[in-house]
Amino acid sequence: MTRIAIDAMGGDHAPHEIVAGALWAAADYNVAIELVGKPDRIEYAIDKINSEGIISTVGGFKNQKIRIDTSKLDIKITQATEVIEMGEAPGQAIRKKKKSSIVLGVDAVATGSSDAIVAAGSTGAAMAASLFGLGRLPGIDRPAIAVTLPTMKKPVVIIDGGANSNCTPEMLYQFAVMGTTFSKNVLGVTNPRVAVLNIGEEAGKGNELAQATYKLLEEKQDKINFIGNIEGREIFSGICNVIVCDGFVGNIALKITEGASSMLFRMLKQEFKTDPLARIAGLIAYPFMKRIYRKINYEEFGGALLLGVKGITVISHGSSKAYAIKNAIRVAKEAFETGINKKIAEFLDGNNSFTE
Amino acid sequence: MTRIAIDAMGGDHAPHEIVAGALWAAADYNVAIELVGKPDRIEYAIDKINSEGIISTVGGFKNQKIRIDTSKLDIKITQATEVIEMGEAPGQAIRKKKKSSIVLGVDAVATGSSDAIVAAGSTGAAMAASLFGLGRLPGIDRPAIAVTLPTMKKPVVIIDGGANSNCTPEMLYQFAVMGTTFSKNVLGVTNPRVAVLNIGEEAGKGNELAQATYKLLEEKQDKINFIGNIEGREIFSGICNVIVCDGFVGNIALKITEGASSMLFRMLKQEFKTDPLARIAGLIAYPFMKRIYRKINYEEFGGALLLGVKGITVISHGSSKAYAIKNAIRVAKEAFETGINKKIAEFLDGNNSFTE
Repeated sequence: MTRIAIDAMGGDHAPHEIVAGALWAAADYNVAIELVGKPDRIEYAIDKINSEGIISTVGGFKNQKIRIDTSKLDIKITQATEVIEMGEAPGQAIRKKKKSSIVLGVDAVATGSSDAIVAAGSTGAAMAASLFGLGRLPGIDRPAIAVTLPTMKKPVVIIDGGANSNCTPEMLYQFAVMGTTFSKNVLGVTNPRVAVLNIGEEAGKGNELAQATYKLLEEKQDKINFIGNIEGREIFSGICNVIVCDGFVGNIALKITEGASSMLFRMLKQEFKTDPLARIAGLIAYPFMKRIYRKINYEEFGGALLLGVKGITVISHGSSKAYAIKNAIRVAKEAFETGINKKIAEFLDGNNSFTE
Repeated sequence: MTRIAIDAMGGDHAPHEIVAGALWAAADYNVAIELVGKPDRIEYAIDKINSEGIISTVGGFKNQKIRIDTSKLDIKITQATEVIEMGEAPGQAIRKKKKSSIVLGVDAVATGSSDAIVAAGSTGAAMAASLFGLGRLPGIDRPAIAVTLPTMKKPVVIIDGGANSNCTPEMLYQFAVMGTTFSKNVLGVTNPRVAVLNIGEEAGKGNELAQATYKLLEEKQDKINFIGNIEGREIFSGICNVIVCDGFVGNIALKITEGASSMLFRMLKQEFKTDPLARIAGLIAYPFMKRIYRKINYEEFGGALLLGVKGITVISHGSSKAYAIKNAIRVAKEAFETGINKKIAEFLDGNNSFTE
């Protein structure tokens, strides 16, 4: 059985919601779990879930209560005496706090005790610990974060979602390869269409990086299914499956998407409070809004994959609750079981091509 | 009376919707209008509006019919025999097509026949024509596009929205000065709060440009009200009034906001079609959704100001219809009447400070 390590101490709602998500995933997805953190706090959370169940809240909407029989689950607890806080400089922190939950969680993957790690704490610390503890895949200069977004059609992968602020065209080509592998093997997209995030469709558009990347990807069309530039407006149309950009642009793009949709929902909620008729409209529209919210919410995809390291690291949103963690564990399991890293390595070794 | 020139031939719905928006603005905002384009086509549009009125459609929602008595309006038609198409290279096009509607529209401002120009055609051509025809303001290296977005509180100005893909920290400081002047004088914000668009709050975050800009703006805190970095997620919270970034990042940010909100509305519409109860919910919720859509839609702000040239240029969305053009003309009028360029020049001359 695949075993997933979880940094039980990372994120705004650790350890309770993290442990809850882990137990929920163990029950639903038939995975073994390794909870890394302070044993007494983890055990307290497990006891509480045993007696009270999991109260799942998604996107501020109240939800059902889930009962879980933890006695039937394969749960291992690994002690970590330290925790890396959000403000700490990642590189320093992972060198100093060798007994922290994120460092020991990555260690669990490096030593083979678990098959993947899920972390909702400091993204920088998770990246640094993974890079240091697992090492880079051959042929990859820098690991990158692959984030899955919903569209009107199939989900799209944006890579890099924030690992590298300064990039080269070669790095973006490697991101394209990793994103294609992910889209194909984990999301099940046939011959994924790759585009460069840009401010216009024409080849000459954009900053120096975007222009040079366009040229390079055009030369690699025998290897990846490059369709050209894509503008921000078109991301959600679903016309392409993998979008490459540097981590600075990618991170801003993702957070703006989050900010804009959250503002829209808050505005709708406010509008539905303006008068009695509005309140009735709101009550009726509520379940439909909730369904949409779930479709677009990051909690549905659970976490982003850090691609390019010799292991599976899934980075979850810092505000993740049980439902998001459960989904992040599903992503980790699927990534591991499809052997994504082996496929990336094979591809970069020159023995593969994604265009079919 | 302030007179606004309009490129009647630019945009997806030219000339009819452009002319309609211009006449509507003339009637509502007490401005004189100079329509630049092919006289026969402009006159045909005016005749049609005289007999049929303006059918206003905002964001795909059907709207009221507006009757306008054009005989009372101050309308001038200036002949332009050429039109610059969307695909043309802007620099070349404005040099080659000296009788195009955008070049002659900018000329109208340069010669003082009109006080501002509104254009919904090629953004590149409008920028090139303005830079060439009006020249730069003293102290400004490169003009930038200031785009106004709604937030939960006051609107925020994002600058640069797409004029310059490669920027220096000095340029971003100048954008901060221009954005502050705009926010204060046109949007009426007291002591506008300025932030750098970045991927984290700390000073050391982001790419080289963001880091260097942070340092420079910190040194200029006696001149602008710099509050630090802002993440994409927080843009819509309304905690800051002016956000500076390079035009590559800014353009992607704006188009993603547009794409994400349009996807959300499309998803809600789809969801409201799933079954009979959903249809009823949709019918009741419809007017409320429409109100939100109007709040967040670009049509409400009408157009973005090209700041840094010696004149007022308002660039509208290519898909603008009458309502958006009407609002763009309002923005042009306000910018002209508040003397924004004089204020920018005074500020850069060293005799002014925005922190109060």
